[in-house]
Amino acid sequence: MVSETIELRGHIIDSLILPKVLDEILRAGGTFRIEQIKIGQRRADQSRARIEVSAPSTESLDDLILRLRQHGAEVAKRADVQLAKAPADGVFPHDFYVTTNQQTFVRLKGKEIEVRPVMRDSAIAVDSARSSARAVKFFDARKGDEIVVGHQGIRVVPVQRTTSHTDIFQFINASISADEPKSAVIRELAAELRRARSSGGKIAVVAGPAIVRTGAGEHLERLIELGFVDRLFGGNAFVVFDVERALFGTSSGVSAERAVAPVGHQNQMRAVNILRQTGGIAGAMEKGILTRGVMHTCSRHKVDIVLTGSIRDEGPIPGVATDVVEGQKIMRDKLADITHVLLLSTLEHSLAIAAMLGPTVKTVCVDINSAAVDRAVEQQPLRSIGLVTDVEPFLRELGDCLAAESDAK
Amino acid sequence: MVSETIELRGHIIDSLILPKVLDEILRAGGTFRIEQIKIGQRRADQSRARIEVSAPSTESLDDLILRLRQHGAEVAKRADVQLAKAPADGVFPHDFYVTTNQQTFVRLKGKEIEVRPVMRDSAIAVDSARSSARAVKFFDARKGDEIVVGHQGIRVVPVQRTTSHTDIFQFINASISADEPKSAVIRELAAELRRARSSGGKIAVVAGPAIVRTGAGEHLERLIELGFVDRLFGGNAFVVFDVERALFGTSSGVSAERAVAPVGHQNQMRAVNILRQTGGIAGAMEKGILTRGVMHTCSRHKVDIVLTGSIRDEGPIPGVATDVVEGQKIMRDKLADITHVLLLSTLEHSLAIAAMLGPTVKTVCVDINSAAVDRAVEQQPLRSIGLVTDVEPFLRELGDCLAAESDAK
Amino acid sequence: MVSETIELRGHIIDSLILPKVLDEILRAGGTFRIEQIKIGQRRADQSRARIEVSAPSTESLDDLILRLRQHGAEVAKRADVQLAKAPADGVFPHDFYVTTNQQTFVRLKGKEIEVRPVMRDSAIAVDSARSSARAVKFFDARKGDEIVVGHQGIRVVPVQRTTSHTDIFQFINASISADEPKSAVIRELAAELRRARSSGGKIAVVAGPAIVRTGAGEHLERLIELGFVDRLFGGNAFVVFDVERALFGTSSGVSAERAVAPVGHQNQMRAVNILRQTGGIAGAMEKGILTRGVMHTCSRHKVDIVLTGSIRDEGPIPGVATDVVEGQKIMRDKLADITHVLLLSTLEHSLAIAAMLGPTVKTVCVDINSAAVDRAVEQQPLRSIGLVTDVEPFLRELGDCLAAESDAK
Amino acid sequence: MVSETIELRGHIIDSLILPKVLDEILRAGGTFRIEQIKIGQRRADQSRARIEVSAPSTESLDDLILRLRQHGAEVAKRADVQLAKAPADGVFPHDFYVTTNQQTFVRLKGKEIEVRPVMRDSAIAVDSARSSARAVKFFDARKGDEIVVGHQGIRVVPVQRTTSHTDIFQFINASISADEPKSAVIRELAAELRRARSSGGKIAVVAGPAIVRTGAGEHLERLIELGFVDRLFGGNAFVVFDVERALFGTSSGVSAERAVAPVGHQNQMRAVNILRQTGGIAGAMEKGILTRGVMHTCSRHKVDIVLTGSIRDEGPIPGVATDVVEGQKIMRDKLADITHVLLLSTLEHSLAIAAMLGPTVKTVCVDINSAAVDRAVEQQPLRSIGLVTDVEPFLRELGDCLAAESDAK
Repeated sequence: MVSETIELRGHIIDSLILPKVLDEILRAGGTFRIEQIKIGQRRADQSRARIEVSAPSTESLDDLILRLRQHGAEVAKRADVQLAKAPADGVFPHDFYVTTNQQTFVRLKGKEIEVRPVMRDSAIAVDSARSSARAVKFFDARKGDEIVVGHQGIRVVPVQRTTSHTDIFQFINASISADEPKSAVIRELAAELRRARSSGGKIAVVAGPAIVRTGAGEHLERLIELGFVDRLFGGNAFVVFDVERALFGTSSGVSAERAVAPVGHQNQMRAVNILRQTGGIAGAMEKGILTRGVMHTCSRHKVDIVLTGSIRDEGPIPGVATDVVEGQKIMRDKLADITHVLLLSTLEHSLAIAAMLGPTVKTVCVDINSAAVDRAVEQQPLRSIGLVTDVEPFLRELGDCLAAESDAK
Repeated sequence: MVSETIELRGHIIDSLILPKVLDEILRAGGTFRIEQIKIGQRRADQSRARIEVSAPSTESLDDLILRLRQHGAEVAKRADVQLAKAPADGVFPHDFYVTTNQQTFVRLKGKEIEVRPVMRDSAIAVDSARSSARAVKFFDARKGDEIVVGHQGIRVVPVQRTTSHTDIFQFINASISADEPKSAVIRELAAELRRARSSGGKIAVVAGPAIVRTGAGEHLERLIELGFVDRLFGGNAFVVFDVERALFGTSSGVSAERAVAPVGHQNQMRAVNILRQTGGIAGAMEKGILTRGVMHTCSRHKVDIVLTGSIRDEGPIPGVATDVVEGQKIMRDKLADITHVLLLSTLEHSLAIAAMLGPTVKTVCVDINSAAVDRAVEQQPLRSIGLVTDVEPFLRELGDCLAAESDAK
Repeated sequence: MVSETIELRGHIIDSLILPKVLDEILRAGGTFRIEQIKIGQRRADQSRARIEVSAPSTESLDDLILRLRQHGAEVAKRADVQLAKAPADGVFPHDFYVTTNQQTFVRLKGKEIEVRPVMRDSAIAVDSARSSARAVKFFDARKGDEIVVGHQGIRVVPVQRTTSHTDIFQFINASISADEPKSAVIRELAAELRRARSSGGKIAVVAGPAIVRTGAGEHLERLIELGFVDRLFGGNAFVVFDVERALFGTSSGVSAERAVAPVGHQNQMRAVNILRQTGGIAGAMEKGILTRGVMHTCSRHKVDIVLTGSIRDEGPIPGVATDVVEGQKIMRDKLADITHVLLLSTLEHSLAIAAMLGPTVKTVCVDINSAAVDRAVEQQPLRSIGLVTDVEPFLRELGDCLAAESDAK
Repeated sequence: MVSETIELRGHIIDSLILPKVLDEILRAGGTFRIEQIKIGQRRADQSRARIEVSAPSTESLDDLILRLRQHGAEVAKRADVQLAKAPADGVFPHDFYVTTNQQTFVRLKGKEIEVRPVMRDSAIAVDSARSSARAVKFFDARKGDEIVVGHQGIRVVPVQRTTSHTDIFQFINASISADEPKSAVIRELAAELRRARSSGGKIAVVAGPAIVRTGAGEHLERLIELGFVDRLFGGNAFVVFDVERALFGTSSGVSAERAVAPVGHQNQMRAVNILRQTGGIAGAMEKGILTRGVMHTCSRHKVDIVLTGSIRDEGPIPGVATDVVEGQKIMRDKLADITHVLLLSTLEHSLAIAAMLGPTVKTVCVDINSAAVDRAVEQQPLRSIGLVTDVEPFLRELGDCLAAESDAK
């Protein structure tokens, strides 16, 4: 058996850091000896533990230590990060460190610097001259960039519970299933969004086509008019359905106002054609063709719109980033200052966005499919809430809460 | 090949009777020759067809003719029904005819009489003296009862499309999925319920516990207060959650008003205990213990309550029929005069009730689980609508529509 | 603020006892001070903690202490349980203690005795003369029985992680979703069932009708023939589908062998009639009518069959307990010596059974509906595995693993 | 009221053409008079009907006639198609005809020519000089192209039932739900694939990442080795999971062979990096790094691989078409000669592919999500089968059937 000593700090009991670390050790077939432990007496106090971890081989110990680092473990004997040069554009050195979406520090020449921004499933590029480090995607990598390899000298700080027990995100911390009450949570969300707006937060909405199809477009417009949407992420279908509805009264051929037979894809295709002819949303508005709908409301209220393509797109309409790598770059840039994200009825976009969020962004996911909700929120423990419900009544009720003047605390 | 000649009458094209008959013949490996066909020129005109059906053997022809009868086919050469005596209480004669939920006639001494009431998965008992026939369940059968065997002399009249193209039940005729708009349909349902009430119809609500859990109890109370509920079918859990909520503010330990941690099953078990001690809803109301909730509202508005047991019941509370056969008898009696049924978030009860409905009862099923909705409505073609959605916003919106005075046509 | 001192013992870190206790305190608006803590250095060592808990009022402290007891907290100052007499048959005294499915001890005249058997959602009846305590349901209660009230003098011992890290139940400890691999888990389950059989365990199968409908009946028969089923729990529909298939080759009118059109409910109703006429499974076997199928195989291999009724039953067939309270009593008795339960594609029965299991019974739930799986397994932490999959290939693969001689470790 | 006379030909009763036409007329608020009808006496005989359709206004009649054309109605008074020039590259003229995926003919200078290829949600470009017509997407359109506008002169021929009643696609014609038997259908599918291969058909597999995750990769490899896969469509994730598994034994960090804890995204990211470094699958094979897995098997058996990008892609790996418009062009080309498609556990790709299929392609969709299955198959009536099940056992059983020499009739 070979051993290494790790240290844990912070709210290691109630943020589940210590239990998870012990669990990982046992699952990996290792053993532990707690050399030292000091538990904070009260909620505000920090705790710390020093644990000797043993595993059957150097390799398995190394694997295990890597896992423990993801839970915030720090190796007792401090060392600098190891660096290697990217061998080519778009390629990382072998054995590059793969990031999580947790706050991360690297030790460089004996000093810890924070990786900023951090994003999961990335490498860490270090600029030794400037003493800075940032998460980089494959497409960011340039030949010769200094990339962190192995996992020495890396410290991850998992999200910990705050001292506030009224934070709805910490409180719920899971999905609310279809047969649970949602009104109280929606009221709390409204309060959170109001706090976000008044404290300089930025709110992004990731909007799926079901919003328009179910007739919830007008509820989303209301949120925009009330000033609760700073940026809108969507795909081609969302825009097409919205414009189809604005022009023809249907979305995907279905009328939300009247119970009549669907008309097929004709209106939808014509909406695409009109947007291609007029050069897009702005053109269609200038020509007086597009006079209502979510996109129209976004434009009038200066909401930034980010549209990315998918293999199912018809058209696509002008303004959609058709190259997926290009789309990812734009998404990442447009998410940089976002503090709150609403993921509404769109699995693909929600997972794409969720993968790019930093550790502190608060996330709400709404979908009628419980599996979709679970997948979208599981990456952001203590920062995300999922609601398994219809998006139409959700947005209606959220709008009602936001419109009400009194604070729904 | 052996042959038989059948006849079809009515709106056999647009009610899909003729296509289904031809399809059945081909699927069964049979062949057909259309001897005569007369198609009504206009919507109101009846059509008729005379078809020679052939199959490889007498047995397969017999099987096939049985299937065709379910679609309304009548054998050209008329014959009386065949009867046999029930060999023992609760047992039908071998080869008894199994009913559907379609309007059914039997030919007795050369005259056709209607089976009343009719109900699916039953036998037909004939009272020759009174020239009457009725559907009977196993538990109805008494030794010596005259029961229809084989399928000679039986004519089934499938539900046909009405001439009205505004009937929402005929128009929708399928489930509305989660990402389709529902407001227009809910408005039409409200109009239908208003028409039902003003024309002497009787409305039953089959209520699942999720209604109370999601906080929709107050919306259901509103429907009751507005006079749109004549009878309420439910189980032990629905009542327990409702009373738990009335007494302790939680249902199944979960508060609908505030986002607080659930309290487990303690309140629920105490609600059961109180109802057992006071003798049930009426007793708890008399003693001034139960002063609000759905059950309380039902009692105040003289809504008939029918409670049947399940293997999962805690208690159960007084008033629940714990024997399932006894429960089925009560259900059947209490459904006899019902014209409209709302099946709300309760699969087991919904399927049990749906199996007892006559051919003309209009049915609406609401559930977040699309498979549950499909199963509940598939038995009532042209008479049922399914909505895949959250029951809480559904009931809220339906209540809003019903409360609004203007007709939402 | 009022305070109380609690104690925790055992593997309080990695069995998540301490974190859950701290979490409950904070969620309830309380505060804590850790007076003393001793963490076991190694996996096998016990830990202990002494914590002062404070809450705003005596009532909220009392509520909080009740919750903490469910996680294994023990109040430092020891007291005897409080008892009150049941005021009537079937009624508990006000304020009766509601049990969980965890191991539970009560302190009686200064000595701790274990509640045996324990079952959740029950009261605890104490026999002072014999120094014994047992969980009782409403239907067990007789006027004058001594019932535990309040929660003084009660100690709950939550299931803790074993030192073995190879126990598949502790290892998985969650549902395996549809897009995760299942073969490795099925192999481990087979090994577990083999160990159960060789060490005197008793295996129960709770069987839903989908087993027969999907054609998995023969796989279940194989498990029975291999000796891996000691008791079979089911409902009327399971038996009817099985017998229908044995007699007519269809179940619910659908053939599993050939892709032919369904025949409706006729075969099903006739199967019911035959069983009613012959007096049930045994009678139909004696008369040589029933010669194959799951029920037939159960009879030949002396597998105990427990059948309980539901409001949807057709018939029912002889042998089904039609009274749900009677059914619960039988279920409880027949579960008393069971060590392993397979819950297969039957939500209602699975939840009913799961509610009656003691703390050590290992449970596997298989269903294509992930919500059903989650609900069935959430009550048995560290003791249950859920698989979201088709029951037919699951049973086929499990049978293959069990039939293979070599241990699939 | 204004009127128009339409004609219907073919198996208009049992292919539901006449019922659907009458239904559309009534739903649209129109009326009809059947001027002439001749019903084929036997299965092989054609029928024909001549119907006068009336509607309240010229506009509504025009809308209605457009709908009726989709069901195969032909306007009695024949006219040439109307053409207009595309006003710009990528833009169609206003009022362009939107295609379905049904066989379509246009009348040009008095002669009918077939649109080839036809594809839904497209326009029709006519080359008068060559007397040819083809479906074009927005990206195909060049300024000045002659595009069909309105719907005069267009005839749609819906898929009709074949005379064979053994065609599994016509027979099933719907989704098989989770609790229905699937073995018989899988055997029939195997027989169909064998017939396809022996008669020069081409089989495409559209492969989702769940195939690899669930451990079904080896089953797919078997299909490839047996010669039943001509082309493989997938995305970046499928390839990454497959290569991750080949290199590290995990996919998305999860081992299919052993029940061990997942390792996170590290292996996955390293697989991407290796493929980027080696230039892709071919490079990794040449260097001897990639020696097994689905992609490896495809390469060895000359299976054409078509990879298209999505906004969620990590990397992406070389060979993935990152531009979605470019991806659609490639997909369309690579689908041109395909006769059978298996859509396996990948909603986005399945819908994209399904939208590009011609009217005769036979389609099988397998997914555990019933909504996904329904959406993928609803576009291909009488040509598609959906199975709601786990993809792993499905592929295993299909492989077993295909490997068995005897014809599984």
